[in-house]
Amino acid sequence: MNVEHESQWEQDLLEKINWLAQFGKDSENGGITRLLYSETWLDAQLALKKMFEEEGFHTEFDEVGNLFARLNGSDYMNETILTGSHIDTVKNGGLYDGQLGILAGFFALKHLQQTYGQPLRNIEIVSMAEEEGSRFPYIMWGSKNIAGQANPEDVKQIKDANGESFEEAMSKVGFRFKKPRETARDDLKAFIELHIEQGNVLETEEIPIGIVQHIVGQRRYNVEVTGQANHAGTTPMGYRRDAMNAAARMIHGINDLALSYGDPLVATVGEIQAQPGTVNVVPGKVMFSIDARHINGEELQSFTENMTENLQTVADHIGVEIDIDMWMDEPPVPMDPAIVDIIKQQCDKQQLTYKLMHSGAGHDAQVFAQDIPTAMLFVPSRDGISHNPQEYTEPKDLAEGIKALTGALYELGYENELSLNKKGIPKMNETTTIGKESEV
Amino acid sequence: MNVEHESQWEQDLLEKINWLAQFGKDSENGGITRLLYSETWLDAQLALKKMFEEEGFHTEFDEVGNLFARLNGSDYMNETILTGSHIDTVKNGGLYDGQLGILAGFFALKHLQQTYGQPLRNIEIVSMAEEEGSRFPYIMWGSKNIAGQANPEDVKQIKDANGESFEEAMSKVGFRFKKPRETARDDLKAFIELHIEQGNVLETEEIPIGIVQHIVGQRRYNVEVTGQANHAGTTPMGYRRDAMNAAARMIHGINDLALSYGDPLVATVGEIQAQPGTVNVVPGKVMFSIDARHINGEELQSFTENMTENLQTVADHIGVEIDIDMWMDEPPVPMDPAIVDIIKQQCDKQQLTYKLMHSGAGHDAQVFAQDIPTAMLFVPSRDGISHNPQEYTEPKDLAEGIKALTGALYELGYENELSLNKKGIPKMNETTTIGKESEV
Repeated sequence: MNVEHESQWEQDLLEKINWLAQFGKDSENGGITRLLYSETWLDAQLALKKMFEEEGFHTEFDEVGNLFARLNGSDYMNETILTGSHIDTVKNGGLYDGQLGILAGFFALKHLQQTYGQPLRNIEIVSMAEEEGSRFPYIMWGSKNIAGQANPEDVKQIKDANGESFEEAMSKVGFRFKKPRETARDDLKAFIELHIEQGNVLETEEIPIGIVQHIVGQRRYNVEVTGQANHAGTTPMGYRRDAMNAAARMIHGINDLALSYGDPLVATVGEIQAQPGTVNVVPGKVMFSIDARHINGEELQSFTENMTENLQTVADHIGVEIDIDMWMDEPPVPMDPAIVDIIKQQCDKQQLTYKLMHSGAGHDAQVFAQDIPTAMLFVPSRDGISHNPQEYTEPKDLAEGIKALTGALYELGYENELSLNKKGIPKMNETTTIGKESEV
Repeated sequence: MNVEHESQWEQDLLEKINWLAQFGKDSENGGITRLLYSETWLDAQLALKKMFEEEGFHTEFDEVGNLFARLNGSDYMNETILTGSHIDTVKNGGLYDGQLGILAGFFALKHLQQTYGQPLRNIEIVSMAEEEGSRFPYIMWGSKNIAGQANPEDVKQIKDANGESFEEAMSKVGFRFKKPRETARDDLKAFIELHIEQGNVLETEEIPIGIVQHIVGQRRYNVEVTGQANHAGTTPMGYRRDAMNAAARMIHGINDLALSYGDPLVATVGEIQAQPGTVNVVPGKVMFSIDARHINGEELQSFTENMTENLQTVADHIGVEIDIDMWMDEPPVPMDPAIVDIIKQQCDKQQLTYKLMHSGAGHDAQVFAQDIPTAMLFVPSRDGISHNPQEYTEPKDLAEGIKALTGALYELGYENELSLNKKGIPKMNETTTIGKESEV
């Protein structure tokens, strides 16, 4: 692309981001709320369908509301390269999380078609129905359906905050469970998702593109520390079984242990509550959460084993009881090295600066990666902010990210040789997520 | 008292405790709720008045509802020895906190009158209107009025949880602000309060009587730690300004510092809150409370200075902001050494086991101690429990405590020589309690 064209399509991109953001936008704070199977969700999918068709792409909804737009291949009609992201948002989300990946695919495909004509393989954009888990307690409904990992039984009993059932909401916008897909589509040869980083690494290091090598594994815990509630004035320090003192030592220890493991291990205590929770009573109970992540399952296992051992040691030392409940255990997911290489080569070719990194958040890509060679591209998030109306990425960084995506799609869709293999990594064990689903 | 008499009056005592507990008793859980100027409060005061009069004591209400019962002295008619405690309770309180001290005075005086006849000095029992601060945000209204430390202006603007004003509540039960007392009554030569310990020291050490030498000073703080809220997965440990990590280190440090000072220093973090308070977000803000107490003002000052310095050091180290707001600063109050000696001698004489100790909780005695030689007696609290229907003291311990009180009142009321001096300790600075009042 030359400079003049570039500035024109960058301007078009920004216009399209703002156009798509109108569906579900809060006129006061600028945030978007576009929950699965809501009216604004349907309006957004139908508007995208129209936009894709105007560009000459073939469109199709699947049975649960994932929208596909296809540029047909000339030679390998049973081989499809897929890109895209999710159309749903969290409540009061930003303009980039999800919808950017769909529009990035659109601009990439439009450019490829205009510049190179028909590809050898099919290239498809997907606007996935759902990823966030913000309306119903279930995440990545869209990608799990495409990859044959969703089962209608899993969502039949769940309801939204207003008591509306999943199936009811689905049928209101014209979709219903037909024959659920039991395996990933055979024609899918690769999936690439472009997404905002949702962290501050790229911004801090002033790099416009992140090429993801791993999506982290996550373990989440609820910890309950039980001591003895006592009068804060009349109970000498030596007579106490102070749940707060114990919890503070535990949280301090978790942090020190995480630092000792070094990057990319992260551990977070986000929630805490003390009972009875009054200034002049030694707390008898403190509850807190732990979220631990790593790209390597064995390292994550090692960290959490040491962590729980340390928690028990502190509990014994202070003389309190501890209950440690692991309610989530998602293994790490590696991206496909061959596609990562293709993206790197394209970045080098186009003189784009990139950083090989991991994703600390969960994404649809981790669902695809079970069966299909998959990779992700990140663009920076200003101040690391996401799930917030303040989400922002510089237009020049958006452009760099889309150039890298375009190059990779060219390589995969227009080149004769495609040395990607059907993925052989083990299927994610769906029973490992226990208790509740949550934002990712 | 011989054994037969003893068992009789112990039985009478238990009956009176249960009788007085009927005023405000919750029939389901057995707790008492007797808030200042409520109907049950008035009923209790009137019933006590009748009981005192039946014993031949002269009774009188002061302008705000403190009830006095007097045994007139024969020789020193301008010298009065006072004992008693408060009639109000916390919401759902127990059978001992407050009312025990009034009934203890009653049984002591009854025994003295029956055994020794008229004293040389007046001996009075007081059933004080209020101490707990449970209905209105003001504590020790009763004793502050007697000691000339209360000002109607302080309570004119305050309301209870139902929006009823202090003055309105007061006038409903027949009291109103007349001429508030500006100094303590001139005739008061001593005050002794018997109270439950509200801690577990006496029970643990199996000692029935505590002779209080000091009431602790208290400082209370609200601490607000401000870091940066970030995604728990995408923000490497080194890029965080984690308010929870900082708070945990701070609380751990407060505890270690308190242990290094040793008894009787106590420090408690009873309240904590994290924002946004979700499992997958690094907290941007954590607020917690600190309650620190010591019997020595300089030690308390030294501890809190070191503590705040340490908090600041942790904040600087982690890279978070900290705001430390001291909203209460009550100095310690020593009890009168001469009365403490009299009680010790009486215990020795009657072969009662006692422990010299401090009070970790606030009491009316600290108000009197500003101007009048004052002391306190403790009896054990089972499991250290107070402000709870589970409050309990063994009858044999109640009896021992009342024997010690009776002996001391005899010494003060019936002996010619009274070498107590008008107290000279500085007046408590009332402006040091900032922001809000609270349970004591």
